[in-house]
Amino acid sequence: MYKVDLNSDLGESFGAYTIGLDSEVIAHVSSANVACGYHAGDPLVMDKTVAAAKAAGVAVGAHPGYPDLMGFGRRNMVCTPKEVKAYVQYQIGALAAFAAAHGVKLQHCKPHGSLYNMAAKDMDLAVAIAEAIASVDKDIILLGLANSKMLEAGKAAGLKVASEVFADRAYQADGSLVPRSKPGAVIHDKDEAIARTIRMVTEGKVTAITGEEVSIEAHSICVHGDNPSAVEFVKNIRAELISKGVEIVPISAIV
Amino acid sequence: MYKVDLNSDLGESFGAYTIGLDSEVIAHVSSANVACGYHAGDPLVMDKTVAAAKAAGVAVGAHPGYPDLMGFGRRNMVCTPKEVKAYVQYQIGALAAFAAAHGVKLQHCKPHGSLYNMAAKDMDLAVAIAEAIASVDKDIILLGLANSKMLEAGKAAGLKVASEVFADRAYQADGSLVPRSKPGAVIHDKDEAIARTIRMVTEGKVTAITGEEVSIEAHSICVHGDNPSAVEFVKNIRAELISKGVEIVPISAIV
Amino acid sequence: MYKVDLNSDLGESFGAYTIGLDSEVIAHVSSANVACGYHAGDPLVMDKTVAAAKAAGVAVGAHPGYPDLMGFGRRNMVCTPKEVKAYVQYQIGALAAFAAAHGVKLQHCKPHGSLYNMAAKDMDLAVAIAEAIASVDKDIILLGLANSKMLEAGKAAGLKVASEVFADRAYQADGSLVPRSKPGAVIHDKDEAIARTIRMVTEGKVTAITGEEVSIEAHSICVHGDNPSAVEFVKNIRAELISKGVEIVPISAIV
Amino acid sequence: MYKVDLNSDLGESFGAYTIGLDSEVIAHVSSANVACGYHAGDPLVMDKTVAAAKAAGVAVGAHPGYPDLMGFGRRNMVCTPKEVKAYVQYQIGALAAFAAAHGVKLQHCKPHGSLYNMAAKDMDLAVAIAEAIASVDKDIILLGLANSKMLEAGKAAGLKVASEVFADRAYQADGSLVPRSKPGAVIHDKDEAIARTIRMVTEGKVTAITGEEVSIEAHSICVHGDNPSAVEFVKNIRAELISKGVEIVPISAIV
Repeated sequence: MYKVDLNSDLGESFGAYTIGLDSEVIAHVSSANVACGYHAGDPLVMDKTVAAAKAAGVAVGAHPGYPDLMGFGRRNMVCTPKEVKAYVQYQIGALAAFAAAHGVKLQHCKPHGSLYNMAAKDMDLAVAIAEAIASVDKDIILLGLANSKMLEAGKAAGLKVASEVFADRAYQADGSLVPRSKPGAVIHDKDEAIARTIRMVTEGKVTAITGEEVSIEAHSICVHGDNPSAVEFVKNIRAELISKGVEIVPISAIV
Repeated sequence: MYKVDLNSDLGESFGAYTIGLDSEVIAHVSSANVACGYHAGDPLVMDKTVAAAKAAGVAVGAHPGYPDLMGFGRRNMVCTPKEVKAYVQYQIGALAAFAAAHGVKLQHCKPHGSLYNMAAKDMDLAVAIAEAIASVDKDIILLGLANSKMLEAGKAAGLKVASEVFADRAYQADGSLVPRSKPGAVIHDKDEAIARTIRMVTEGKVTAITGEEVSIEAHSICVHGDNPSAVEFVKNIRAELISKGVEIVPISAIV
Repeated sequence: MYKVDLNSDLGESFGAYTIGLDSEVIAHVSSANVACGYHAGDPLVMDKTVAAAKAAGVAVGAHPGYPDLMGFGRRNMVCTPKEVKAYVQYQIGALAAFAAAHGVKLQHCKPHGSLYNMAAKDMDLAVAIAEAIASVDKDIILLGLANSKMLEAGKAAGLKVASEVFADRAYQADGSLVPRSKPGAVIHDKDEAIARTIRMVTEGKVTAITGEEVSIEAHSICVHGDNPSAVEFVKNIRAELISKGVEIVPISAIV
Repeated sequence: MYKVDLNSDLGESFGAYTIGLDSEVIAHVSSANVACGYHAGDPLVMDKTVAAAKAAGVAVGAHPGYPDLMGFGRRNMVCTPKEVKAYVQYQIGALAAFAAAHGVKLQHCKPHGSLYNMAAKDMDLAVAIAEAIASVDKDIILLGLANSKMLEAGKAAGLKVASEVFADRAYQADGSLVPRSKPGAVIHDKDEAIARTIRMVTEGKVTAITGEEVSIEAHSICVHGDNPSAVEFVKNIRAELISKGVEIVPISAIV
């Protein structure tokens, strides 16, 4: 039987600021990437999010980002690998405290935003992240972009790695994402997005934007809870996956 | 044989900013209170400080403070106990990551600055801090002001607690510190400070500013590494203690 | 003819975080208190808010707060008057840059949250704020709580001051607000709130919670745009004021 | 008679953290670049620094940087030109408040660290900075790297511009700096550095690392006050310039 994880970024609220429909989307995913206070999130939000994930039976992972609250971690910053390693250690540790307090284990770590995108292509950053995880807890799974440097670095560091795919993004012939700046990067037809995702999960294949059949591992699908239509999409993709015989489980049950 | 711990705040540098003669004072203390990024410290500094403590055979503890880098955690902030609990959990966890990476355990947690002073007198804050520690790791010792609410709250939460004394501060008849705003609060004569400290350690007594003999437990003495004369004082107090037959050991060897 | 100003806190969004229905409420007020990046707001938000205020014919004022983004400036912080003065200067200046860029003048300065509440009662803080304003631009009006230390300090510093009243808050016999912690502090009946406000504007009187008639100057009424019902209330109070012959004008047209 | 400005970064301390020998170096320079709270500096430090510059007869300029206190503004961040424009407006305005309070005018604006380096080569960022300055105060001089995009953008925005040279850096044949990553980028011989600087000021020429004679305008020389030997160097270069008949004056007396 096929299995896949649905992961979503949660706990991105901060102080008086609320972002994301966490209480809605959490019912439909199997893994939560919890912001750790650098690009988003604060200690109260982290506590609440871990509690909500536990209550919903959703696995908890760290979602470390650059120290750029004003830019929500979405701006490239040129940090040294040593800095990145320390930032990831710090953020994993901070979240681990709340996990311990709620009696759950951190399942995974998925870098956020620009850190994710930069480390997908930059082996030094990828190694820094993998080493950070391994140094804190060897059992934490590195969740990274399919076919990226992050998965390579994770394996080299002795970590379990999980390969993440995007339902609504086009892929290039080398298995990487078509950059958002290019035409066709985002698949707007929701049915097509779902069909592509099911194929990635069940066949391990995706058709590249240039027509080639590309091998891709789909351990986890990234979904969003930013707005009502995003939540609706999560419900739909979940239902479609289940109807095709795919079981939705946390990544620890897959890798 | 008498035993006492010498503790010092370390790792308070931040980014390009250096504060404290860490590399000098660390040779003379037995426990390091490491700043955790809220009032001081950053991930690189935390990593370096934990490494230095390990190398020097000095026990590592968390030194959480208010989220006020501009005020160095020295300004009273009216946070709810729930906020304080979450801030302490966050900071302990963050430091624990570096401890794990260096293969050491967090020995203790000592709140910083205004958080320390406020929680000494406010039972709700003291309970929040004690519960934060207990929720993350029951083995972490709460290091707090002698005769304060913090020690009460720590015991109630099932934690080991360590009672901290100040060499250069006058005490009131109830065992509390004379507020800095009052005359005579600080003992400027270094020989007198050392003599008083030795008496606290060996006899469990201190003479109050109003003349009474007060019982006081001295598990740990707070010392500073802010400047060369402070470091000199640490060397002197250490030498005097040893000459009086007092062993300098981490608090985990005392409580 | 009676005149009154309607003021609202605007520009409290930050980075990816949106708060407040600014684009709706701005159509109904005459003065905007613009957050300046310490407790809320960021440079892009400030720029956009000043532009929106100018387009709507709404006067622009600085809304400085404590450096506590995580607490939205709503937590008491014990800063020295010297610190408060410098923080207010900094924030006024920052906003003045955007005002200059859009060719508008800063009309007023209204402290935010805990800074407002603390300075209402603490003359040292009130003086610090008044001196900060006067040092940067003597033409900026200090908008503060009716019958508070802020107005006293503003006058003493040679500033024009505007007296602010709250539609939905009960008053004590000395003209101060009933603290939110006490029963009856908030007036939930919207019609009663509007009727009281009209009386404050047209008669300069309000009935204290203990029954006395109290003199009160109502140069400006604080209204909110946090949610749709708050915006609805602003529309209603505006319509009622106009129907009673009260003109809604910026405070610079009143004091 | 030849004239040149000596500029130094001042006011980079933050809260409890002190950096730079401001009180020593200020006696030897003619223009101060004052940090504005984003990469360094805080309101109290800004106030104190403007006061000290005024007392020393040193002209005051804004030194805006990226919002990266942890990285001291020395890490490249990919911000949009719109973000950069707003950040520069904000910081100039903040400093202008302290200038107003002390009765001085902002003479210039010199971007800091990575913002300076990136804008030297990126016309969009250079235009954003120039437009920010022009939008706040057309009289502020843009101080930027000799032969850089910043000076071009400043002129296009209708600003006066001042061309900055470095005593201890090698130049390429196109008038740009040899990147620090390349051999020979830094001139360690202090006498040679001084001789080169005097030639830049008096002849408008510098010998490129590849041997060519390059034209260069030297309105201002960047000097440092980080440590005693840096301050010593400032004294020496000042004395040598004066002995060669060069007058040290603020840039407003040159451009």
